[in-house]
Amino acid sequence: MAGNSIGQLFRVTTFGESHGPAIGGIVDGCPPGLTITAEELQLELDRRKPGTSRYTTARREADEVKILSGVFEGISTGCSIGLLIENTDQRSQDYSKIKEVFRPGHADYTYWHKFGIRDYRGGGRSSARETAIRVAAGAIAKKYLREKFGVEIRGYLAQLGPVAVEQVQWDQVDQNPFFCPDPSKLEALDSYMRELKKAGDSVGARVNVVASKVPVGLGEPVFDRLDADIAHAMMSINAVKAVEIGDGFAVVEQQGSTHRDELTPAGFSANHAGGVLGGISSGQDIRVSIALKPTSSISIPGKSINLQGEPVDMLTKGRHDPCVGIRAVPIAEAMLAIVLMDHLLRHRAQNADVVCTTPDIARLQDE
Amino acid sequence: MAGNSIGQLFRVTTFGESHGPAIGGIVDGCPPGLTITAEELQLELDRRKPGTSRYTTARREADEVKILSGVFEGISTGCSIGLLIENTDQRSQDYSKIKEVFRPGHADYTYWHKFGIRDYRGGGRSSARETAIRVAAGAIAKKYLREKFGVEIRGYLAQLGPVAVEQVQWDQVDQNPFFCPDPSKLEALDSYMRELKKAGDSVGARVNVVASKVPVGLGEPVFDRLDADIAHAMMSINAVKAVEIGDGFAVVEQQGSTHRDELTPAGFSANHAGGVLGGISSGQDIRVSIALKPTSSISIPGKSINLQGEPVDMLTKGRHDPCVGIRAVPIAEAMLAIVLMDHLLRHRAQNADVVCTTPDIARLQDE
Amino acid sequence: MAGNSIGQLFRVTTFGESHGPAIGGIVDGCPPGLTITAEELQLELDRRKPGTSRYTTARREADEVKILSGVFEGISTGCSIGLLIENTDQRSQDYSKIKEVFRPGHADYTYWHKFGIRDYRGGGRSSARETAIRVAAGAIAKKYLREKFGVEIRGYLAQLGPVAVEQVQWDQVDQNPFFCPDPSKLEALDSYMRELKKAGDSVGARVNVVASKVPVGLGEPVFDRLDADIAHAMMSINAVKAVEIGDGFAVVEQQGSTHRDELTPAGFSANHAGGVLGGISSGQDIRVSIALKPTSSISIPGKSINLQGEPVDMLTKGRHDPCVGIRAVPIAEAMLAIVLMDHLLRHRAQNADVVCTTPDIARLQDE
Amino acid sequence: MAGNSIGQLFRVTTFGESHGPAIGGIVDGCPPGLTITAEELQLELDRRKPGTSRYTTARREADEVKILSGVFEGISTGCSIGLLIENTDQRSQDYSKIKEVFRPGHADYTYWHKFGIRDYRGGGRSSARETAIRVAAGAIAKKYLREKFGVEIRGYLAQLGPVAVEQVQWDQVDQNPFFCPDPSKLEALDSYMRELKKAGDSVGARVNVVASKVPVGLGEPVFDRLDADIAHAMMSINAVKAVEIGDGFAVVEQQGSTHRDELTPAGFSANHAGGVLGGISSGQDIRVSIALKPTSSISIPGKSINLQGEPVDMLTKGRHDPCVGIRAVPIAEAMLAIVLMDHLLRHRAQNADVVCTTPDIARLQDE
Repeated sequence: MAGNSIGQLFRVTTFGESHGPAIGGIVDGCPPGLTITAEELQLELDRRKPGTSRYTTARREADEVKILSGVFEGISTGCSIGLLIENTDQRSQDYSKIKEVFRPGHADYTYWHKFGIRDYRGGGRSSARETAIRVAAGAIAKKYLREKFGVEIRGYLAQLGPVAVEQVQWDQVDQNPFFCPDPSKLEALDSYMRELKKAGDSVGARVNVVASKVPVGLGEPVFDRLDADIAHAMMSINAVKAVEIGDGFAVVEQQGSTHRDELTPAGFSANHAGGVLGGISSGQDIRVSIALKPTSSISIPGKSINLQGEPVDMLTKGRHDPCVGIRAVPIAEAMLAIVLMDHLLRHRAQNADVVCTTPDIARLQDE
Repeated sequence: MAGNSIGQLFRVTTFGESHGPAIGGIVDGCPPGLTITAEELQLELDRRKPGTSRYTTARREADEVKILSGVFEGISTGCSIGLLIENTDQRSQDYSKIKEVFRPGHADYTYWHKFGIRDYRGGGRSSARETAIRVAAGAIAKKYLREKFGVEIRGYLAQLGPVAVEQVQWDQVDQNPFFCPDPSKLEALDSYMRELKKAGDSVGARVNVVASKVPVGLGEPVFDRLDADIAHAMMSINAVKAVEIGDGFAVVEQQGSTHRDELTPAGFSANHAGGVLGGISSGQDIRVSIALKPTSSISIPGKSINLQGEPVDMLTKGRHDPCVGIRAVPIAEAMLAIVLMDHLLRHRAQNADVVCTTPDIARLQDE
Repeated sequence: MAGNSIGQLFRVTTFGESHGPAIGGIVDGCPPGLTITAEELQLELDRRKPGTSRYTTARREADEVKILSGVFEGISTGCSIGLLIENTDQRSQDYSKIKEVFRPGHADYTYWHKFGIRDYRGGGRSSARETAIRVAAGAIAKKYLREKFGVEIRGYLAQLGPVAVEQVQWDQVDQNPFFCPDPSKLEALDSYMRELKKAGDSVGARVNVVASKVPVGLGEPVFDRLDADIAHAMMSINAVKAVEIGDGFAVVEQQGSTHRDELTPAGFSANHAGGVLGGISSGQDIRVSIALKPTSSISIPGKSINLQGEPVDMLTKGRHDPCVGIRAVPIAEAMLAIVLMDHLLRHRAQNADVVCTTPDIARLQDE
Repeated sequence: MAGNSIGQLFRVTTFGESHGPAIGGIVDGCPPGLTITAEELQLELDRRKPGTSRYTTARREADEVKILSGVFEGISTGCSIGLLIENTDQRSQDYSKIKEVFRPGHADYTYWHKFGIRDYRGGGRSSARETAIRVAAGAIAKKYLREKFGVEIRGYLAQLGPVAVEQVQWDQVDQNPFFCPDPSKLEALDSYMRELKKAGDSVGARVNVVASKVPVGLGEPVFDRLDADIAHAMMSINAVKAVEIGDGFAVVEQQGSTHRDELTPAGFSANHAGGVLGGISSGQDIRVSIALKPTSSISIPGKSINLQGEPVDMLTKGRHDPCVGIRAVPIAEAMLAIVLMDHLLRHRAQNADVVCTTPDIARLQDE
């Protein structure tokens, strides 16, 4: 059933397959009055774009986004925004060999059982190609949040295989093809990736995303908690297998006296919670961490079955990212932006009348 | 805005505060023809019920559920099912001291900023008390899934502070007050909890949930992936800070040649994926792991502020679980059941016509 | 599937059957800070209550509503509001005769085919008994709209069988058991109803509802137009077969030069549109008219079939309204209030930043 | 907020303005396995297309629809279907004069107040141009319903101003530019329209739509009744001011003994209900009637105000339909198809297990 939408009030709906003529989407619920240009969306898209370094897929896509509606003379009108990106470097012939077999670790087997038909070209709808539209939609959310509330959403590669970053220098993230915030790790990353490529294998990664200056109060009791919706959005990204908010799994071994973030007139004593208390933003940084599995499309032969259930040996060809986690950084940022935007609208729908005189201590802390 | 519902087709909506007269909920979308008795729901509720061991809160609630509609002569009618549990052991006077202050690590501060008013009695709506209705609703989903498809949903405590289980004996889980599947760990758990109580502190935990014999094909591209909806449901449980599907964060250091589960006519070679490929169930066991933070209600004094933003020292009284993770086991099972039930209905809505002759290899493997 | 909810942001979900132990509902999304008492809700419920005049069903229900959550010390908290009304005068034995047969004009046949089971007692879920909860929920919406924006929502019986009202004196509506605004018609109504009862028959009715001082701007392009959502809400009331906005069916014979309401600095020249232009409120009175069919439960024998499909002669006993349209007045008001409330929240979610300096001419006109 | 979607499981989301580069939409939830070609969609689009007769707008649009996703080798895959129609005959200069003023009877005033900005070119998003995508989406629903269940959805012009049809010859509807089923009225229609055009005025219309062989059981208690969702869908069409199901407003003067449709083993005795009982389809013909107002864009000068609230005289130029009701026939059919399709999916999601041995008497009657 209809599962191609995310968000309640800021709702993004997408379509498109890896090797179809185009991918696209509709952003519904964007407030009117926001300056939006295709160029701005393009900046974010270019960060995700394939073919930009030797560490990512060789597929070359201009990923040129067109805004077809909802923006009039450069300003959002409040009406639905149509987005379109034409596919330009699809090579369907690469995929004809996998028509009859299921690539291990991919959605081939499950799509086939679910739908009884599948567009086998590059994974069809299950390809991460669709995330380009998420990035474009997220760029709209990001801009609104930044302009109206000063919210800053930033991500980085925190670990790739055995190489974990040790420091976060935000200004470094966009200076290298890994979105790596720790310049001392660039060499290790480069050599690891060279070895990996030589071996024809792939590797997993951890990506961290942080949203700063988020207004206090976003998130809805009890099911649509902000952290629950973040978890949903992050896990909806291809290859993501785990999500943490704040200290995440480290809380298992923590005691309450350690974990609880005390409050003082000057701010919170710490941020173990990751900016969410009771499912509602506290005004502190929202800290999210996700794990992305290694792509299953590798040059090492593997066992599988064909449509008849017979055993086959298979070798996945085509052009693939050896670490899909790298390009996931802008995608994760986009998803966090979409969730925050949606919750901002949800919050003010119900709570427009609220007057709270208690100081916003996280904001005090920021200043 | 309206955030008290979960599910699209099997939709659970709840109400109720910790110290109000009652909590309740509506299960909308239950298929007709299912035998449902209050007694069956009660069995699940009794597993979650407070006051049953010295390791959980001393609050005593009968947690007696009434079915007010949607079931006629013991059979579900397809109409909305009203559920009600009266609160019997609320002691609001315990909480009057916290009226003017925010308990660290709780939702007090965020609810206050969001709504400008809060029911301070025991956390009001932010209390885990509301999860009782989730368990009752989940019992309905569990039963349907088991009766119609043989799906089995089971959870256990995997780790409590430093004590991690080393083996899973399913028949042991309900034999001890910890939902611990490893009898060799019971002593360690008991002594750890005694020390903890003495110290007046609390501790985090890890809970694992497994769904077996799930039909292949559940989950919707691209946002309403099964794993995304599971992550949402799990993170919506009070105190949960992290969710993993399958190998979870371990994938960060895995290579594709290790992670990908190969397919053979006799079944999958492994289950690193945790039963979900491309967001759709593969028929393998769905493996979910969650982290629950230590409750912030402890007997150790902490710093906070009051409604005026002035510093206060505070000591949380009241009756609390020193490890909320223990009683989370039946809650996590319930949430997984609700998500699977919802996706089962969603799947068959769209795909009722699908005929797939490729063998269901996970089912073969099970047999 | 889950169809027992209405509204996106101000969402009402209900449960309960005509002869079950209770009916109830959840109001999700009510803004915090609103004074709400059970007594206020009761005032609206008493207007709808059965057994209050000889023109309505003899069933006597106290219809006493309890607020179980979401209101703390008399003020709404922003959390979900649980509502409960116990059924006190159910007499299920009255209905055992219809267990095996389908009452013509009722939902018996369709529920049976849809669900394969039905609570035959008084129509079960299909009974208009559930509308009591709509009235309680609507009372909350009404109050908010009135307090914050001065919106006034009022309805009346416009026609009953052949008796059509000719003038609207608002202060008369609650002075008679017909909700009739035209005192000159009371005698005709009384005598018509006496004859009808003698004949054992029932009759249809037209009910008009008007909302005044509605803020300009409510309604969403393009599917969730305000008038579309009003039509949905009205048609969801039992027995409603038609809905008009503004001039309604009269527009078929109108020309554009007549229909279009011109704008002047002092206000609109007319209100043929019924307060909605392009699906968005114009600030003028929202005028809605609905038709309610005669109840099919009459004392005149009719033909039907039984569960086996065999012909039967049947006579509907039980206690029924000879004109369900009468008691529909407060229900229609409630539904209009719920829709306006929902759209008010939706509007301000997206458009909180909008500054419009063009005068609100409808408001000028009101003053 | 997000209001550009309709349907829960078969969900259509649209974008696009009258004079933007393109309009488009996404159909989410279409079952897999359905043969769909752009040519088939085009057949329906051509029925709605402007510029085809002297009775409709002179704007010439090819209305050529492209399918961008969700269909693989001519078969639906179950994934979201992207639809795109480029605007080719937009002439924005026609509209620059109305930039500063509000056309009476149009959405100009309400959009301006709601959003603080408006795309004034041809009404922007409020233009009926967006209905082209509804027709394309409806064609998909229509085809599925016809292929799988034999459902036939047909509409016609029932009245135009004073000219009402007196007989329905289905085979005549597509033989004339009025969608008129009564050949004896064609001359009257033609001469009326000529006079109207000469006068520079416009006129309202009534359109009827009938769905035959609808499966019994579609519709959900209690808010998402089939008739309620039909009313919503119909009222969401531009210019619609009223909706009737079955006998509609005629029920006001009916008695129960007349209105109730008796059941016999050979079928229903009549169809006053219009195919819906208790909000659920009975298997009889679903009969819907709608009223469309005369377009407000006429050549007769009218009064209005400008953005500053000052009085202006205005004359609407541009190319307009003198009776928007004519081209509404295929749109109304499409909306009915979308609603039925959505409810078909919703029904089988929950009720897949139901076995009902009571004969489907409406189906018997059909055969």
